[in-house]
Amino acid sequence: MTLPSLTPPTFDDVAAAAHRLHGMAHRTPVLRSTSADEMLGAQLFFKCENLQRTGAFKFRGAFNALAQFTDEQRERGVLAFSAGNHAQAIALSARLLDMPALIVMPEDAPASKMAATREYGAQVVTYNRYTEDREAISRRLALERGMTLVPPFDHPHVIAGQGTSALEFFEDVPDLDYLFVCVGGGGLLAGSLLAAEARAPQCRVVGVEPAAGNDGQQSVRAGHVVRIPTPHTIADGAQTQALGDLTFPIIQRLADDMVTATDEALVEALRFFAERMKIVVEPTGALAFAGARHGTVDVRGARVGIMISGGNVDLSRYARFLAD
Amino acid sequence: MTLPSLTPPTFDDVAAAAHRLHGMAHRTPVLRSTSADEMLGAQLFFKCENLQRTGAFKFRGAFNALAQFTDEQRERGVLAFSAGNHAQAIALSARLLDMPALIVMPEDAPASKMAATREYGAQVVTYNRYTEDREAISRRLALERGMTLVPPFDHPHVIAGQGTSALEFFEDVPDLDYLFVCVGGGGLLAGSLLAAEARAPQCRVVGVEPAAGNDGQQSVRAGHVVRIPTPHTIADGAQTQALGDLTFPIIQRLADDMVTATDEALVEALRFFAERMKIVVEPTGALAFAGARHGTVDVRGARVGIMISGGNVDLSRYARFLAD
Repeated sequence: MTLPSLTPPTFDDVAAAAHRLHGMAHRTPVLRSTSADEMLGAQLFFKCENLQRTGAFKFRGAFNALAQFTDEQRERGVLAFSAGNHAQAIALSARLLDMPALIVMPEDAPASKMAATREYGAQVVTYNRYTEDREAISRRLALERGMTLVPPFDHPHVIAGQGTSALEFFEDVPDLDYLFVCVGGGGLLAGSLLAAEARAPQCRVVGVEPAAGNDGQQSVRAGHVVRIPTPHTIADGAQTQALGDLTFPIIQRLADDMVTATDEALVEALRFFAERMKIVVEPTGALAFAGARHGTVDVRGARVGIMISGGNVDLSRYARFLAD
Repeated sequence: MTLPSLTPPTFDDVAAAAHRLHGMAHRTPVLRSTSADEMLGAQLFFKCENLQRTGAFKFRGAFNALAQFTDEQRERGVLAFSAGNHAQAIALSARLLDMPALIVMPEDAPASKMAATREYGAQVVTYNRYTEDREAISRRLALERGMTLVPPFDHPHVIAGQGTSALEFFEDVPDLDYLFVCVGGGGLLAGSLLAAEARAPQCRVVGVEPAAGNDGQQSVRAGHVVRIPTPHTIADGAQTQALGDLTFPIIQRLADDMVTATDEALVEALRFFAERMKIVVEPTGALAFAGARHGTVDVRGARVGIMISGGNVDLSRYARFLAD
């Protein structure tokens, strides 16, 4: 069965998610950097979701969704298709809530990601991404096994869970003038916007996409969801083709601006994070900082929040970025 | 002039240092890792001094020493010899306290370290490490300019400052059974021991040295400071030849055990920190974890504190560790 898509999420859902996640998700630290401040002529604050459980913010939305399963749903378990952070987030959440999990992954997904997902106790089913349709496979498996499919971003419980990071951020750092957030399907941005509207209405929230695929920017300009071919970018977490039916209206209504960052700027940011801030960030996780540094928004003199979304990157690939 | 070496530090000096450092040093986060817990069969807590200002715990001791300068000393400024974390710690502390700083570095020190030290506003004087004696040069310069020399570990104000990290650790994580701390000259360990004696007497504190140079272990066994040739290890922060006159008696009296870790175990730990915990740690900073994992102390079932001392490592060198 598919998780029913209920009504669009509100701030109350974000607040309720924070309650559910208390003691389950890490309250991630906010780091500062004198070098970053000097580079941008602003006061920067970095919310480190790379230090979240499973290495990314995705744990928040996944756990929030699974925690609301009925007893019957829990017994049958959860199904997700993902080659990335959503897979590990679902796997760990299912283990914590003691339910079966099945993850559908392309057979050429990195071995380390499959291993990590299995380590969290999930069953992994692979498919050929060139000849098979993952959504069809997932729907068939969900039907056969009575499992509940949790989508990676376009669901109110997922969006509400993702919003809890910004909520913590606004609690820890009052009076932010800007918050920069990366955009793939828009779950993290939509959740952050709900948190900002309620708790930091002065804060202008800016979405950052890879320059190779600005479907979100195009969508906001067009007033409807624009779909693009899968963008070629090192930001693999943002290689989405379109915003979701639930995330788009929230972004349309509340986002202050949408900017982009090149792969070159992402590599530069990864190196900065390693060298000066001593944190490992994945390319997608560097979008917000690269967008604040090189985007079209003038942040000089402002208090700027940077959402670092995750840190999951194969070590050998990461080593190449640093050695460049 | 040389900073007068007063009496051995006590816990009161650590508490006073914490007061001086409040708002100046970061209160570094304590991270958890399910994978680490499973690997060691224990509950692990990681105190992240790699996320401290200047990327290492050294800032604590340096700032605490400089903050106690007399007006005359402040006017003339501070001098230090170091190719490593002490240099940047002194440089930033001097800038924050608005005094001149002069750092004596070998002329073949990594360009990045010289640049970072200069960025913090210090003057750098280089010497040839094969033909010149850095201590003689430093003493001459200190005399000529009336600057005060601050040693990297063997001074009560430095030791007291280093102890503030363990003090925070015990405040944040009560009931630690063990605390593992890396050992070079012994400043961090001695400070941590003073904090543990006063605030966590149940906690057994274990020093960890590179396997290539266990002068601390030998000293504790012999009952006097043992000097060894400069050890060949990737843990460049622990390439000291001997404990200090002030650090040794504290370690002798209070350390529960001294263990060692091989370079191989350090690389393994660096990779673990990057892959699973998303933090950049320098080889010396990985000693404590490697010692807890592979040392002779049985930590199963215990609550174990790991002091991560720093994260300053050249990106190209770090990339090679990860790519191995």
